[in-house]
Amino acid sequence: MTMLTKEELDLQRSVRSFLKAKVAPLVAEHEQARTFPWEILPSLHEFGYVGGLVSPDDGGDDISYSMLAILMEEAGRCWGSLRTTLNILTIVPYLISVVGTEEQRNRFLPDLLSGRRRAWFGMTEPDAGSDAGALRTRARKEGDAWVLQGRKTYITNALHADVGIVMATVDPEAGPNGITAFLVDGRESDYAVHDIPHMPVRGTSSCELVFDGTRISGHNVLGEVGRGLSTAMKAINVGRLNMAMGAVGLSQAALEESIKFATIREQFGRPLGGFQLVQEMVVEIATLTQTSRLLGMHAARALDAGDSARQECSMAKYYCGESANKAASLALQVHGGAGLMEESPVERIFRDAREATIPEGTSQIQILQMGRALLGQSALR
Amino acid sequence: MTMLTKEELDLQRSVRSFLKAKVAPLVAEHEQARTFPWEILPSLHEFGYVGGLVSPDDGGDDISYSMLAILMEEAGRCWGSLRTTLNILTIVPYLISVVGTEEQRNRFLPDLLSGRRRAWFGMTEPDAGSDAGALRTRARKEGDAWVLQGRKTYITNALHADVGIVMATVDPEAGPNGITAFLVDGRESDYAVHDIPHMPVRGTSSCELVFDGTRISGHNVLGEVGRGLSTAMKAINVGRLNMAMGAVGLSQAALEESIKFATIREQFGRPLGGFQLVQEMVVEIATLTQTSRLLGMHAARALDAGDSARQECSMAKYYCGESANKAASLALQVHGGAGLMEESPVERIFRDAREATIPEGTSQIQILQMGRALLGQSALR
Amino acid sequence: MTMLTKEELDLQRSVRSFLKAKVAPLVAEHEQARTFPWEILPSLHEFGYVGGLVSPDDGGDDISYSMLAILMEEAGRCWGSLRTTLNILTIVPYLISVVGTEEQRNRFLPDLLSGRRRAWFGMTEPDAGSDAGALRTRARKEGDAWVLQGRKTYITNALHADVGIVMATVDPEAGPNGITAFLVDGRESDYAVHDIPHMPVRGTSSCELVFDGTRISGHNVLGEVGRGLSTAMKAINVGRLNMAMGAVGLSQAALEESIKFATIREQFGRPLGGFQLVQEMVVEIATLTQTSRLLGMHAARALDAGDSARQECSMAKYYCGESANKAASLALQVHGGAGLMEESPVERIFRDAREATIPEGTSQIQILQMGRALLGQSALR
Amino acid sequence: MTMLTKEELDLQRSVRSFLKAKVAPLVAEHEQARTFPWEILPSLHEFGYVGGLVSPDDGGDDISYSMLAILMEEAGRCWGSLRTTLNILTIVPYLISVVGTEEQRNRFLPDLLSGRRRAWFGMTEPDAGSDAGALRTRARKEGDAWVLQGRKTYITNALHADVGIVMATVDPEAGPNGITAFLVDGRESDYAVHDIPHMPVRGTSSCELVFDGTRISGHNVLGEVGRGLSTAMKAINVGRLNMAMGAVGLSQAALEESIKFATIREQFGRPLGGFQLVQEMVVEIATLTQTSRLLGMHAARALDAGDSARQECSMAKYYCGESANKAASLALQVHGGAGLMEESPVERIFRDAREATIPEGTSQIQILQMGRALLGQSALR
Repeated sequence: MTMLTKEELDLQRSVRSFLKAKVAPLVAEHEQARTFPWEILPSLHEFGYVGGLVSPDDGGDDISYSMLAILMEEAGRCWGSLRTTLNILTIVPYLISVVGTEEQRNRFLPDLLSGRRRAWFGMTEPDAGSDAGALRTRARKEGDAWVLQGRKTYITNALHADVGIVMATVDPEAGPNGITAFLVDGRESDYAVHDIPHMPVRGTSSCELVFDGTRISGHNVLGEVGRGLSTAMKAINVGRLNMAMGAVGLSQAALEESIKFATIREQFGRPLGGFQLVQEMVVEIATLTQTSRLLGMHAARALDAGDSARQECSMAKYYCGESANKAASLALQVHGGAGLMEESPVERIFRDAREATIPEGTSQIQILQMGRALLGQSALR
Repeated sequence: MTMLTKEELDLQRSVRSFLKAKVAPLVAEHEQARTFPWEILPSLHEFGYVGGLVSPDDGGDDISYSMLAILMEEAGRCWGSLRTTLNILTIVPYLISVVGTEEQRNRFLPDLLSGRRRAWFGMTEPDAGSDAGALRTRARKEGDAWVLQGRKTYITNALHADVGIVMATVDPEAGPNGITAFLVDGRESDYAVHDIPHMPVRGTSSCELVFDGTRISGHNVLGEVGRGLSTAMKAINVGRLNMAMGAVGLSQAALEESIKFATIREQFGRPLGGFQLVQEMVVEIATLTQTSRLLGMHAARALDAGDSARQECSMAKYYCGESANKAASLALQVHGGAGLMEESPVERIFRDAREATIPEGTSQIQILQMGRALLGQSALR
Repeated sequence: MTMLTKEELDLQRSVRSFLKAKVAPLVAEHEQARTFPWEILPSLHEFGYVGGLVSPDDGGDDISYSMLAILMEEAGRCWGSLRTTLNILTIVPYLISVVGTEEQRNRFLPDLLSGRRRAWFGMTEPDAGSDAGALRTRARKEGDAWVLQGRKTYITNALHADVGIVMATVDPEAGPNGITAFLVDGRESDYAVHDIPHMPVRGTSSCELVFDGTRISGHNVLGEVGRGLSTAMKAINVGRLNMAMGAVGLSQAALEESIKFATIREQFGRPLGGFQLVQEMVVEIATLTQTSRLLGMHAARALDAGDSARQECSMAKYYCGESANKAASLALQVHGGAGLMEESPVERIFRDAREATIPEGTSQIQILQMGRALLGQSALR
Repeated sequence: MTMLTKEELDLQRSVRSFLKAKVAPLVAEHEQARTFPWEILPSLHEFGYVGGLVSPDDGGDDISYSMLAILMEEAGRCWGSLRTTLNILTIVPYLISVVGTEEQRNRFLPDLLSGRRRAWFGMTEPDAGSDAGALRTRARKEGDAWVLQGRKTYITNALHADVGIVMATVDPEAGPNGITAFLVDGRESDYAVHDIPHMPVRGTSSCELVFDGTRISGHNVLGEVGRGLSTAMKAINVGRLNMAMGAVGLSQAALEESIKFATIREQFGRPLGGFQLVQEMVVEIATLTQTSRLLGMHAARALDAGDSARQECSMAKYYCGESANKAASLALQVHGGAGLMEESPVERIFRDAREATIPEGTSQIQILQMGRALLGQSALR
């Protein structure tokens, strides 16, 4: 691929090589145990993961979106659970960095950027998925503190992280304008976390959080009261870009596994790769992967150029997610029965890819957002 | 659906009602534990499962293929693992019944038809999937007995069954004409069984069988020596019909879950089912389900009419399997994040459907078989 | 196909044989000239075309919907323009027969059923396609007569027919309840007809009708004033079934042409049909054709059984139309460059198929109608 | 789109503006008459069409492949027939320039580059499409001259051009190594040209050429005797890139027409563009267009970087061609009945797009070429 700069190619090579040597050998075991090798994280920070979007003044790396995109493709290529975990770990410090007060930045960023503490992001509720404005978690002022009441669901890794951002409304009557972002320090505030077993990205936990009178310090409002959706929106493009490029990584892994298998496995006296129907599946995977990558990198380039890039990120999230599902299913089909076994990487890739069309805005939400931009009116209400 | 006879509709209603009452409540627990409620099987025999294709002279029910098709749809609608298990349990007694000697029929059928013993079917090998003629498991005559050497893979429920049919070659030089079917009685013969954890149909085991000098009585050749592929071919249409209709059941379940969820869950102030993009997904699932059902039943009718129906069964296996994958993935998308959680039935349906395009001939094999029939020449070699 | 009765198979064989002998040889010439061999129509009446849905009391044939479905498949298989023409010629006498007064039936049916006169059906307007309630053509009472003002568009064969049914509103304020069906006798009433050249079904004309003070006798209200949509709805299932089965005929023709071409044409030293990728395309066409046929016949059977069958006809129209487009495009691809030439039947089949997803309710309208039935609420408004 | 350089954006704007002002107004009339406005061609040469790949030493413009790609997208966006015509007009001088002798370059290039004469390229035969090595046109040496015997088919614009390159074998026994490229000067050599009416790109002619003892000067061998396929291969990437980017232009036009129509046309009281199902179609077209463009430009960039880019050009030809078909069909569906009328641009775009998966290597040929590269073995023989 000629479109990367020398610096980008160097980053890609070094991170790929590191992940292959240090993480890939751990994947099968952790997948089966549904655990994550937390100890490997700090060494990943050196590539730009986690602190990549944080300004150097706050101890971050301030890499380009294109660099971040490459990092996320490589993470996804290695292990879906890794990419999912790194997404949240990257977004939370970014939001603290751009919206937080100096005191908040000083209090939280050093621990997050060094890997001493980990973060979760709590927005989705049982009845408020894409419709974030409908969330019901309530924050009430009591003296200097805030008291939270409500439930969040599908919160990545909340079992293994103790710094969180949670969205709650200070005034349900105010609709979207009541929604406020709060920093939750698990060392100070009480809340319950329940694991919800799930199909994809088994190295992560997908949790329910229960706030039942959880007290939060008055210093922990992130950004302004009533501007929580605006804060969340600052991460929307990054979240979509990260998911898009993670999906590209899954497609790339699907391609490599398919080529390997089709080259080795024989049927009817020749390698699978010698049959037209198999070549067609492999070429289709390759094409899905390449178009996805170009679209994702195009979105990253647009962000780097200072464009709003809302449409580009939405299209990348949509297309790369749908394509990863197709690519993974084709790769499994190339493998036949072997692909259904947990010992095969494509079994994991297939499950992990299924997530790609859902969080950070389902494919349907992306369609309706792009449709509104292209056609000048909302079809949602 | 007007195309079923009164008798068929009665069967459908009674089996659906039984499965709903007695099996459905057990599914979630067994899925999670990767176990199967073996105790429920004998009561299913009364509907025609297991003994359906066996002649009354041998203690069977001799139901029509159309009745069998209905049974398999209902099993698949209830639980993929149930359908997969019933497929093998139905095919083995059928083969013993049509190819076995009187002594073999007397020795094995009563136990299998009553549910006192269970069966496995051993054909696939690591390097012989669709290309059955390439199998390497070797059977050598030693005195009156045969001695087996080799490995079989992806053998359903071999951990939980002790009557088997295994394909082995008595003469590798003879190619397909050396392949012979043997009955394996687990009470008499030693072989190792290893579980291979797999993604779909978690209530079944998918096993590796290792024959390392396994001795088999000379009375246990099933059919003629060297005619094993011919024996296997007797079950090929039934196996494909069963998988096709099981896939229809999965699609039907995907449809019902989607309608239920889209009716209850609200977003943006209205039930999901009120959005055009959700209606489109649900209609697509309904259309895939109905076309699949009509095609599967058409194949069953053709078999009942005495046609060879090779093409009809192949098309049904191909189309119903591909369609179940699409339907299940759409249903999961209708559910959004909820569909990725193991507590949701669509999570299971999605995994179970992924199997539908692989065993009993992959979609690619079906295409090439139909293609040869339509175009008059093989594109496989 | 085993699902047809002997009588149905006989009809299929005889009409197929007639069309092959008498119509097929005329197609290429008329396609090129954009004309239609009107002289062949009366002999088609004998098979049940045109009068098929009219009661014997009115001189009709009163055949089953299944018989009609077979007739429409055969017409579509022979020539898309033939099927389109026969659809309208069958629907208009049917509506006159079920809604018309005795006087109207006596005045129009003998000429239409004998083929001495031909009919058009005028509903669509530039701004009222699927949204029939929005039509603007106005009918004003003047003495005993009605005076029409407005435009209709995409009216099949209005250039070559002089008995019409036109929908107009007698009271725009009344919305759907003002819409009224009128019989238009071209020998008595003046209106302008303009041909609009179009891509598919070149043997038909697709016309604009201009009513500019057109006077219509007071005896020509068809059904009750204000009940025009109800009258139109009586034909909605038939229109959709006809289009669905016509689309099946196109798919069947695409299949036959592809098999023929792939058997004869060689590349790289073997017939095209010997390549896996070609077999895949041909098998896909065959599968689309067969699932379409089963779905269409299922709708016909449901109508014959007296069911409302609204959902069945809608699903058939949707699926068979979409499938014919896929089948025709695949068939063209099998032909390569030859398929783009007007001398090839697939060039015509490809163009004709493109119509199948549009009239009688676009695919989107069918989805939203089925979605409403499945999910209990409209997503249209 | 941020990925173009300033110079590229300037070219794009100026050529788009010129085509809109000078060519677009002529399209409808020429489409209907199946003619081409040859008089506009010379002014297009100024943008780099025709002489773009020819070195300045030979009077050409020597633009980059990226510039050429932009030109071809714009041509395709304006009118498919224009893009098809410019493809051949660009390739022939390029081949003469890189393979021709100085005498040949002097004799032919000035007239071709100035537009005084036009060119055709004759390779395909009735039984030799993708399998170029199977061509049967025979060239026999007679004294100093060569005598041609054979037929070529689907030769673009041979009716309106009199400088040709024809591939013929000087020795059928030698297989591919006998194939030789000859320059044919229509002012000196006799051959017959027959028009074959075709569906897409109606402003071009697709011709049969008949050589029946056609004499060609001995000075007109282009490149070496027996190296004709090698000569043709020099244009293979360019031909594929041109078709790919022309297809992108068709998709872009489909997008623009759809947005325009969906914004203006109302149904059920709101613009079509306000319905979710319409937004979905438009977003799908936009996504197909953007992924296609990025893939095509990526291939052009690879060529500019000096890579062989065989795989990139093949993937672009494959994906952009398939995508243009989908985009055009969706655009037609957005238009409903209006899209079937010849007065609508999407009717033309739909027909023109159907060509995109066939010449310069069908989609199947591209798959098998990419498959061989990815999997290390040919599945063609």
